[in-house]
Amino acid sequence: MQEQFFPYQILSEFTKDIFRKLGLPEQDIDLATKVLLSADVRGIDSHGIARLSGYARLIEAGRANPEPKVKVVYETPSTATIDGDRGLGLVVAPFAMQVAIEKAKNVGTGWVSVKNSNHYGIAAYHAMMALEHDMIGISMTNASALVAPTFSMERMLGTNPICVVVPAGEEPPFVADMATTTAANGKLEILQRKNMPTPAGWVQDKEGNSVTDAHALKQGGALLPLGSDRERSSHKGYALGSIVDIFSAVLSGANYGPWVPPFPAYVPMPQNMPGEGIGHFFGAMRIDGFRPADEFKQHMDNWIKRFKGAKPVNPDQPVLIPGDVEREMEAERMTLGIPLHAAVINDLKGLADKLGVLSIF
Amino acid sequence: MQEQFFPYQILSEFTKDIFRKLGLPEQDIDLATKVLLSADVRGIDSHGIARLSGYARLIEAGRANPEPKVKVVYETPSTATIDGDRGLGLVVAPFAMQVAIEKAKNVGTGWVSVKNSNHYGIAAYHAMMALEHDMIGISMTNASALVAPTFSMERMLGTNPICVVVPAGEEPPFVADMATTTAANGKLEILQRKNMPTPAGWVQDKEGNSVTDAHALKQGGALLPLGSDRERSSHKGYALGSIVDIFSAVLSGANYGPWVPPFPAYVPMPQNMPGEGIGHFFGAMRIDGFRPADEFKQHMDNWIKRFKGAKPVNPDQPVLIPGDVEREMEAERMTLGIPLHAAVINDLKGLADKLGVLSIF
Repeated sequence: MQEQFFPYQILSEFTKDIFRKLGLPEQDIDLATKVLLSADVRGIDSHGIARLSGYARLIEAGRANPEPKVKVVYETPSTATIDGDRGLGLVVAPFAMQVAIEKAKNVGTGWVSVKNSNHYGIAAYHAMMALEHDMIGISMTNASALVAPTFSMERMLGTNPICVVVPAGEEPPFVADMATTTAANGKLEILQRKNMPTPAGWVQDKEGNSVTDAHALKQGGALLPLGSDRERSSHKGYALGSIVDIFSAVLSGANYGPWVPPFPAYVPMPQNMPGEGIGHFFGAMRIDGFRPADEFKQHMDNWIKRFKGAKPVNPDQPVLIPGDVEREMEAERMTLGIPLHAAVINDLKGLADKLGVLSIF
Repeated sequence: MQEQFFPYQILSEFTKDIFRKLGLPEQDIDLATKVLLSADVRGIDSHGIARLSGYARLIEAGRANPEPKVKVVYETPSTATIDGDRGLGLVVAPFAMQVAIEKAKNVGTGWVSVKNSNHYGIAAYHAMMALEHDMIGISMTNASALVAPTFSMERMLGTNPICVVVPAGEEPPFVADMATTTAANGKLEILQRKNMPTPAGWVQDKEGNSVTDAHALKQGGALLPLGSDRERSSHKGYALGSIVDIFSAVLSGANYGPWVPPFPAYVPMPQNMPGEGIGHFFGAMRIDGFRPADEFKQHMDNWIKRFKGAKPVNPDQPVLIPGDVEREMEAERMTLGIPLHAAVINDLKGLADKLGVLSIF
């Protein structure tokens, strides 16, 4: 695979220039850039700068609003619903998570459902905002339908990630950020580029047969829910994806199920949409809403150490704590730079040309 | 398999007699019975009356307290930690869920972590208490370690179920109740009795090899997390089980990971336990904390209808909504009776003899 490495700072300046040209207000440019690139930094390449052109097309097509007036439209002391005013999720989501955190400061927890938003980057960025407040952070979002429920030929759910972040003391935080599918779409795309088959249980073809053809999804097939098949409890992955859909969209008034708008602006919008935009859901829980924070952190450190020390099957592969891989990736990429695939570089060059931004490539 | 059917009412009276003999106070006897038998009624046979002897042994061994003083020991307007005083989870859990519901009435949501408890029956009973209040209900519990995290030879987590319940309007509620493993232990026990192999991805042997021997768990092996193996994202099932463990026990001060006390009273307690008893976690969210309840219910009905109507792979097997199977089972068993396996009947006969309760068998 042809890749080239770029320092974070260079990609950040470039991304800011693009967002500026797209009409984002000055105070949102830094935030949108930081959220977007947090994906590249943590190694979730499918959700980072590779999507910048996609965000641009959403704005150009009028599907996303570069200057949203994001606001709370419904609330109680521990809950709120937010209207994202068709803004980029990169900006709407941190606003919503901040509302959850403020409510948690006041009454112990805060829970925020969001409608009328767009793709929000990686789930972990938003949930991790809770950490500096000694809170557990939760983030989820629905997305356009690529996943077939158990027994379904039809795609009904997005890859609908769930992220739960837990602060620790001396140990790094626990950061679980997972699509509710067997495999993330980004991993499938890598196999497509290499023309390699998938492991069993990732995809089905358009007739609903479980196959190992990485191109099956693009040919009308579907991703499979976490669990892979009925015998291995794909109904649980389906249920998890459904919970994300309901919390993010049925609670807020966004679109759900097969009606969630697509990320690519050239894909027609679904017919008879029941809500507004896509939906997210956020939670923040003060750890000292349950016990003194120091006590909690000591036990969380103990939890992490005990799990890290579990006897491994293979002595060369110790048991990992959720978030370990991404944290190591972050340390590496902030030093060595962020690798971009030739196709992504080409795409960004084209974007820079089109918008009249100085290309760094 | 030799089975005999019993009417609910008969099993209920018998169970009450047993709990009375075990020293439960009058006001707890009905509740503990109702919670326990809700498992049999919903078809989760492994968690119902088949466990009655196990609860009795916990009390006889002094590991469970038949007359607990359950109380809130820490709280904010939307959170609480509850000390179960070594009571049966069958009684402690409904108390805790009620606290979550009361907090939700006041501030929109309620979140309760519980320590010093014991096995709480099925997760769904407690979460479903939220439905009559037009709330979303959440219930989870940790349990003694049977599950090996990804890359681990050692058992570190229980089957740690998550239950999420969502009210609808004309449609029945959405009730997702799932162990965070590939297969529930109850399903494994059925294959053990029949001496049949498991599907791939359910268990590993004591060296950490994935095997299909249903007896591998009893021979020092482990259940596998939802996802089955690394290629099919078992790290997500591991993360989900970990979240349940942390919310239930690190937040509350219960035991976690490999230190969770075993259900069978003859199994020695773990060494150096860091907390008290086992832990649970409950949540209640008012749907009108996010939008008017009628609006929510209309859209939830629409969600359910659309998913039920998804094009199936096989026309004879329509797409199901989480909770459909258990609800149909309930209707059937309340009419035709509850089937008990010969081994369970024998065990209950012995229990009745030992306690001097009139046997119905």
